[in-house]
Amino acid sequence: MALLTVIYRTPEDAAAFDKHYFETHIPLAKRIPGLRRYEVSRGPIASVAGGGDFHLVANLYFDDMAAIQSAFASPEGQAAGADRLVFAPEDADVIMLLFDTEEV
Amino acid sequence: MALLTVIYRTPEDAAAFDKHYFETHIPLAKRIPGLRRYEVSRGPIASVAGGGDFHLVANLYFDDMAAIQSAFASPEGQAAGADRLVFAPEDADVIMLLFDTEEV
Repeated sequence: MALLTVIYRTPEDAAAFDKHYFETHIPLAKRIPGLRRYEVSRGPIASVAGGGDFHLVANLYFDDMAAIQSAFASPEGQAAGADRLVFAPEDADVIMLLFDTEEV
Repeated sequence: MALLTVIYRTPEDAAAFDKHYFETHIPLAKRIPGLRRYEVSRGPIASVAGGGDFHLVANLYFDDMAAIQSAFASPEGQAAGADRLVFAPEDADVIMLLFDTEEV
């Protein structure tokens, strides 16, 4: 599998963030072609090390890295990316990572 | 499910890090009671936003947050935590997050 992990730093208005994320962003992102599974954190993010004040983690699973590239390039991926800029406008608001993953 | 996500920043000696991680740390961490699934990134971590230079991501799945608390408190969890300090000694070397997760 390949994973797109998006870690959102705590926003100024967490309630507004959550409303937008759960009501608008998730439905948009779920339309992305090739998305196999979409998991979102519920409740607080405990940060054991590395500091940072994080609000939400999303893990989007795809078959492989090529599928993620295709997903980003798709109209649905572009729409989800544009929507992200509505509720997390700055690059510094998120950590967004892509990688191949395997069970060990 | 609950997830322990550990994101390692790129170490000075990546080859030594990988050797220790795959040969020593994974076998230790796999002994942690309550661990349901353990996935590790393979190959480079692409960072789309949020900067940072990351080398490896590990996702350890447990039934719930209570299971993660028990895992940390167990001798096997303590051993894995102590071993982490061998190959990633500083808090700044990692981002370590714990959270409940659900599919959306």
